[in-house]
Amino acid sequence: MPASFPDLKPFFSPKSAALVGASADLRKFGGRCLKQLVDFGYEGRIYPVNPKADTILGMPCYPDIASLPEAPDHVGIVVPGKAIPGVLKQCGDRGVRHVTIFSSGFSEGGSADGAAFQAEIVALAREHGIRLMGPNCNGLINYVDGFALTSTATINGPRAPKGDVAVLGHSGGLAQVNVMYRAQQAGLGISYQVSCGNDADLDILDYAAFMVDDPETRVILMLAETIRDGGKLRALSDRARAADKPIVMMKLGRSEEGMQAAVSHTGALASSDSVADDVLRQLGILRVDDCHEMIDVAMMLRTGRRLGGRGLAAVSISGGNLVHLADQGPMHGLAFPDFGSATKTRMAELIPNYGQASNPADVTSAAIGSPEIFAGVLETIAQDPAVDVILPVLTLHSAELIRGTAQALLASPKPCAVIWSGNCTDDDTLTHAELVRMGLPVFRDIAPAMQVIDAAARYAELAQAARPVVAPVPPVQGLDTLPGQPDEADAKAFLAANGFDVPRGMVAETAADAGPLADRLGGAVVVKILSAEIGHKTELGGVQLNLNGATASAAAEEMGARIREVAPDLELRGFLIEEMAAPGVEMILGLSRDPVFGMVLTVGLGGIMAELLEDVAHRLLPVSEDEALSMLRQLRGWPLLDGHRGRAPADVSALVRTITTLSDLGMGSDGRIETLDLNPVIVGEAGQGATVCDALVVLSR
Amino acid sequence: MPASFPDLKPFFSPKSAALVGASADLRKFGGRCLKQLVDFGYEGRIYPVNPKADTILGMPCYPDIASLPEAPDHVGIVVPGKAIPGVLKQCGDRGVRHVTIFSSGFSEGGSADGAAFQAEIVALAREHGIRLMGPNCNGLINYVDGFALTSTATINGPRAPKGDVAVLGHSGGLAQVNVMYRAQQAGLGISYQVSCGNDADLDILDYAAFMVDDPETRVILMLAETIRDGGKLRALSDRARAADKPIVMMKLGRSEEGMQAAVSHTGALASSDSVADDVLRQLGILRVDDCHEMIDVAMMLRTGRRLGGRGLAAVSISGGNLVHLADQGPMHGLAFPDFGSATKTRMAELIPNYGQASNPADVTSAAIGSPEIFAGVLETIAQDPAVDVILPVLTLHSAELIRGTAQALLASPKPCAVIWSGNCTDDDTLTHAELVRMGLPVFRDIAPAMQVIDAAARYAELAQAARPVVAPVPPVQGLDTLPGQPDEADAKAFLAANGFDVPRGMVAETAADAGPLADRLGGAVVVKILSAEIGHKTELGGVQLNLNGATASAAAEEMGARIREVAPDLELRGFLIEEMAAPGVEMILGLSRDPVFGMVLTVGLGGIMAELLEDVAHRLLPVSEDEALSMLRQLRGWPLLDGHRGRAPADVSALVRTITTLSDLGMGSDGRIETLDLNPVIVGEAGQGATVCDALVVLSR
Repeated sequence: MPASFPDLKPFFSPKSAALVGASADLRKFGGRCLKQLVDFGYEGRIYPVNPKADTILGMPCYPDIASLPEAPDHVGIVVPGKAIPGVLKQCGDRGVRHVTIFSSGFSEGGSADGAAFQAEIVALAREHGIRLMGPNCNGLINYVDGFALTSTATINGPRAPKGDVAVLGHSGGLAQVNVMYRAQQAGLGISYQVSCGNDADLDILDYAAFMVDDPETRVILMLAETIRDGGKLRALSDRARAADKPIVMMKLGRSEEGMQAAVSHTGALASSDSVADDVLRQLGILRVDDCHEMIDVAMMLRTGRRLGGRGLAAVSISGGNLVHLADQGPMHGLAFPDFGSATKTRMAELIPNYGQASNPADVTSAAIGSPEIFAGVLETIAQDPAVDVILPVLTLHSAELIRGTAQALLASPKPCAVIWSGNCTDDDTLTHAELVRMGLPVFRDIAPAMQVIDAAARYAELAQAARPVVAPVPPVQGLDTLPGQPDEADAKAFLAANGFDVPRGMVAETAADAGPLADRLGGAVVVKILSAEIGHKTELGGVQLNLNGATASAAAEEMGARIREVAPDLELRGFLIEEMAAPGVEMILGLSRDPVFGMVLTVGLGGIMAELLEDVAHRLLPVSEDEALSMLRQLRGWPLLDGHRGRAPADVSALVRTITTLSDLGMGSDGRIETLDLNPVIVGEAGQGATVCDALVVLSR
Repeated sequence: MPASFPDLKPFFSPKSAALVGASADLRKFGGRCLKQLVDFGYEGRIYPVNPKADTILGMPCYPDIASLPEAPDHVGIVVPGKAIPGVLKQCGDRGVRHVTIFSSGFSEGGSADGAAFQAEIVALAREHGIRLMGPNCNGLINYVDGFALTSTATINGPRAPKGDVAVLGHSGGLAQVNVMYRAQQAGLGISYQVSCGNDADLDILDYAAFMVDDPETRVILMLAETIRDGGKLRALSDRARAADKPIVMMKLGRSEEGMQAAVSHTGALASSDSVADDVLRQLGILRVDDCHEMIDVAMMLRTGRRLGGRGLAAVSISGGNLVHLADQGPMHGLAFPDFGSATKTRMAELIPNYGQASNPADVTSAAIGSPEIFAGVLETIAQDPAVDVILPVLTLHSAELIRGTAQALLASPKPCAVIWSGNCTDDDTLTHAELVRMGLPVFRDIAPAMQVIDAAARYAELAQAARPVVAPVPPVQGLDTLPGQPDEADAKAFLAANGFDVPRGMVAETAADAGPLADRLGGAVVVKILSAEIGHKTELGGVQLNLNGATASAAAEEMGARIREVAPDLELRGFLIEEMAAPGVEMILGLSRDPVFGMVLTVGLGGIMAELLEDVAHRLLPVSEDEALSMLRQLRGWPLLDGHRGRAPADVSALVRTITTLSDLGMGSDGRIETLDLNPVIVGEAGQGATVCDALVVLSR
C-alpha cells in the first residue's frame, strides 16, 4: 500500500500565523521567534498570543487562541509543557489545523513520563484534527513565500533570496547552521528549511514530500536522526526519482555511541547501519557522511545536468594538480578517457606547439595570459563524446580567465565542475560563491570534487537503470500447515514446495531406521538430529557427514546418546538423512525484519573470513534478478563466484533464482515469517544449481 | 649507514643571489621571478644576469656569471636548456655552490634524450662542486629571512609574516597554491616553501631535513610525487621524531593512472602504494589524501600539545552536532569518556538545574547568553584526567562567547580543537583564521576534525612507543653454500640452519626410495617433486598429501610420470618426503625488495578470501617483536589468530618469533637475497609452534 502524504501548503505558507508564548523579551525563545517572523518580512497576518501583554513589537497581543479574530493557518507554541494540552484544545475548538510545538520535555529526554506526555498531546491533536510539528523542534523557514517560524540567528539581517535547495533535519543547529547557513555562504539559495524535532505526528518524510512536490526545489538535503517508516521512505524516494529531485541524506546514529546520543536527542530508535547503507542506495538516496558533503553534492545536482557516464576531462596549468586528479579519479571509479581525434585536431589548432593532447591536459604554456585559448579548449572538449564531465582546474588567475571559464562552461549543456584551489588575482568580488551563484559547482579541493562527481554518476546510473518489473508474486505454498516451530525437515519441505532446491532426504524416527534409509538414498549421506528446539546443530555435535547405509545407524545412535547427555529434556523427533551436497561456494541467505525498513533480504558469503568482514548485502523486498546480481557483485568475495584465478565460475544464475525465490517467499508470506535463514546454500559450478543445505524458519507470533 | 644531509643554509638564506635569464618583461618567467625576489623584500645583494640588458628594475644587469663582482650564494637559471651547461660551467669556475634550474626539457617529458640531458647537467654540477635544485621546478620561498626565488603569484602583495609550517612539493601549483596559500588564508604562517621539480641532484628529503633542523619550523608538509631513497627517508623521519617535528605527507602516484601522470610530471618512479602506506606509518610520517587535510593536521600539530590518549570532551549548545560527533568519534577510534566526579560536581555548580553532566555535554540552557558559564565549563573539563582533547562545538555566537572560549582553551595546556560551523554574529573580524592566528586549531566540520584528532593521536602514540631495540643481528648461516637457484630442500635446510621450524623431511632420489623414507619418517607424509626450476608445484600436480610408507612410492612414480609428460625438459632432482604439518592457521611471510624502500617484510593470511582482500602488512627491516605483533593485529583476519568465537588461539608468539627470525635473515643477508617466500607457514594452537611448510629463495644476481 503506497504511503500518502498530507497537504502541507497551509503549514508552510500560511495566510495567518499565531505564536502562543510570544514575548517582547529577546532573551526568551518566544521573543526571538516572533522577532524573526516579523524581520523575515512575512506578509501574512501575525497574532502574538500572551495573556500578560497588550502589544508586542507594536502588534496587538491576544490573551488566548479563542480571542483571535480568525483561526490562523499555523500556530506556534512556545509555552511550557504543562500548558500545552490546554492550548491544543483551544486550537482544536477554534479550527486550527497546523501547529508547531517548540517546547521540550517530551520523549527526547528518554524518560517514560516524557514519552507518555508526548503520546498524550499527539492523541489530543488527532482528536481535534490538528497536524503537529515537533515537539522539541526549531520550526521552519520558507524562502519561497517569505515565512519563518523559528528562533535561529541564521536568518538575522536582510532575507536571503529564495533558491532551489531544501534542507531538513531533526536538529536545529546542524540543519540550520552547518547546512543551510553554510550553503548560503557557499552561494546556494534555499527554498525551505525545517528543523522538526521529535516527529511525534508529522515526520521528516512528510516535510520532504512537500519539498519534492514544490516546483522551486531541485535538491533535498535531509539530516535524519531517525526514519520511522521504511515503506514511507520508499514512497518518498519513488516520488523524488519520478520528479528527478535527488535526496541527499546524512543519517545520524551510525555508531552505537551515536545511536545512544540520538535516543536522548529526539527519542528515536536507530536501525542497523549496514542495512541503512544498502537500502538507501537501493532507493536512490545519496548518503553522505558530513554536512559539507551535502552542500557539495547539492551544488552539483541542482544544475539538473545529469551524467552520461564516468569520463572526466580535466584541463589545468598546474601539473601537480593533474597528477593528484589522476590519483583521485580512479579511487572514485572515474576515468580520464583519451580525447577523440576531432578534439586532438582542434586543440592542436588552438595551442601552437602543443603536440598531442592528453587527458588530463596540462596547458601551462598556452593558458598563461591567454584566457581565450583556455576557454576554447573547454569548448572543444565539451563536444567530445567520450567526455561526460568538464573539469577545469584553476589556481590563481585573472578575472578575465575565470569569467571566460565560467562562460564556456555555462554555454555547454554538458555537466561540469570547477576545481579552484586559489582565488582571483585582480577582482576580490569574483569569489567561489559568485561562480556558484552563476550556476556552477565549484570545489576548492580535488578529493571532495571526485567524491561528488562519483555521487552524481551513481545518481544518474540509478535513474538510467531499468525500473524493476513488479512481477506478480506466486502464492506461498504450505505456510498454513507449517507447525508453529518448524524443524529442519518441515522447513525443507516448505522450501521445496516453494521452488527451492533442497537435498533429497528422509526422516528416520529411530537410529535403527537411519541405515536402511541411507541405503535407499544411495551414495554418501549426512545424518542430522531433528528437533525444532535446536538452532545450531553443529555446535552440539548433531551433524555427521560422509556416512552410508553401513555406517548411518551407528552414527545416529552415537549422536542421539551424546545429545541426550548434554540436553536431556530436548524433544527429539528423530534424524534427518540427506544426500551429501556436492562441494561448491557456501553462501548465507536470509530474510529478517529490520525495525525501520521492514522485511530485508540479506545475502553473504559463508566462511570465517567473510563472517569476520561482515561481507553481506541487504535489500528491501522485492528483489529482482538484476538486483540479486547487484547484491552478489557488491560482495568483496564476488570473485569466488565469478571464477577467480582459473577456478570454474559458480552457478550464479541458480543462485540469483534462489534469491528471487526467497524474495517471492518474503513478499507472499504477508508478515507471517519473522526470519528465515538458509545457511549454507551451496552453489555448484555452472549448471549444477544452488542447494539449500540447512534452513531455519521462525514464524511471527 | 645513516644518510647525511647537506648544509643548505646558504641555499635557503643566501647573502647574495643571481638570476641568469633575468628580464624586465613580466610575461617572461625570468621577469616574474626577479620581480618577486625584489618585491618579497630580500635584503641581500641581487644580480640580474642577461647579456641583452644594462639594467633591470633599476639594478645593474650583468652579461654573465663571470662578470659578477662576487660568487653569489645562490644562482637561479631560467635560460633555455641548451644554454644551461655553459652557465653551469661558469658557475663552477666562479665558485658558486648552489644553483636552481627552473627550465624544463629534462626527464619530466619521459624521453630518453631528456633523461640523458638531465644526467649530463648533474654530472657537470658534481664535477664543479655545485648542488642543484630542479630542473623543471618553481624554486623556494624563505619567510624566516625574507628570500624568494620563484615565479609564483601566491606571494604577490605585502610579505606575509613568517610562521612555523614548512611546505614542500615537487609541483609548483599544488604546493604553492593548494597548500601554502590556502594555509595562509586559514591563518597559518609559513617558514619555508620549496617546489623542487625533478630532484636531479638535491632531493625533497634534503630540503625537508633543513626544515626539521630549522628552529622556526614546527610541522613539515610534504607533497611527494616520488621518494627515491627509503633509507634517506628513514634517516629524515628519525631526525624529525627526535625533534618532535611531525612530517605530514601526501604521496602522489597512488593509482596506476596517477603513477603514469607522475612519470610524465617529474620523471619519477612510484612504488607500490600499500607498501608506502605501511612504511610511512612505521616511520611515524602522517599520510593524508588531500591538501586541505594537510592544512588541518598542521593546525593541530603546530601547537606542540601532544595527546595523552584518545578521550575527547565535547561541549555544545547544538544537540544535533553532538549526535554527529558521537557518530564520528568512534569511527576514528576516539571516545567520549565519562567525566570524573569532580568535573560533575563543578559543572553542577556552574550550571543551575543542569542535572548529571554527560559527555558529549549539551549545555544549551546554560550557554545562551552566558559566555562566562561556557568558559567555566571548558576550564572544568580541561582539568578532568579522563579528557585528552577539549572540544567546544560552536555555531553562531557573539564575540564575547567566542573570545571567552579561545581564552579558556589557550589558558589550559591540554590539547584542544574548536569545531565552529557558523560565524561570529557581532564582529566580522573575529573569523576562523583569527582564532588560528591566536594559536588554536579550528575546524568548520566534524568529520575532518575527528580525522585530524585521530592523526594527532597516532602521532603521539608513535612518539610514546618504545623505540625498537636494535639487537645485534645473528650471522646468517649457509648463505655462501646455497646453490645459485636453490630448490625446496636447499631452502628448507638453509631456513632450519637459521632458526626456522621446518617439517622433518628427506630427499628421495627415485620414486622407489620414497616409500622406505616415508617409513623412516613414520606417520602421514607429504610427497613433493623436487626441482629448482618449479615455483608452483601444486598447480603442476607436484604435491600429494596424506601418504605413508605403503603408498608413497606409487604416488611419487605417478607424480614423476605426470610431470615428465607436461614438462619433459624439467630437471628433476627427485622427491621431497616430509612429515605432514598439523592443521592450523595458514600464513604467508616474505621478504622482497621494494624499488623505493628497499628490503620489505610482508605478512599476510593464507586462504582465498585473504588473497582477494590483499590482507597483508608490510614493514621495513628490522622488525622487532612489538612491530611483528602490530603487523598481525593490523590484519583484518587477526581474530583468526587471536581465537575467534571460541576457537583456540593460535601460537602467536611462535609466529612473532618466525617474523623476527625472518627480519634477522633479511638484515644479515646483506642484499644477497632478492626475495624469500614462506608460503604457507602453518601456525598451530598455542605451544604448537609455526612451521614453514614451503619456501622459495631467490638470490640476487
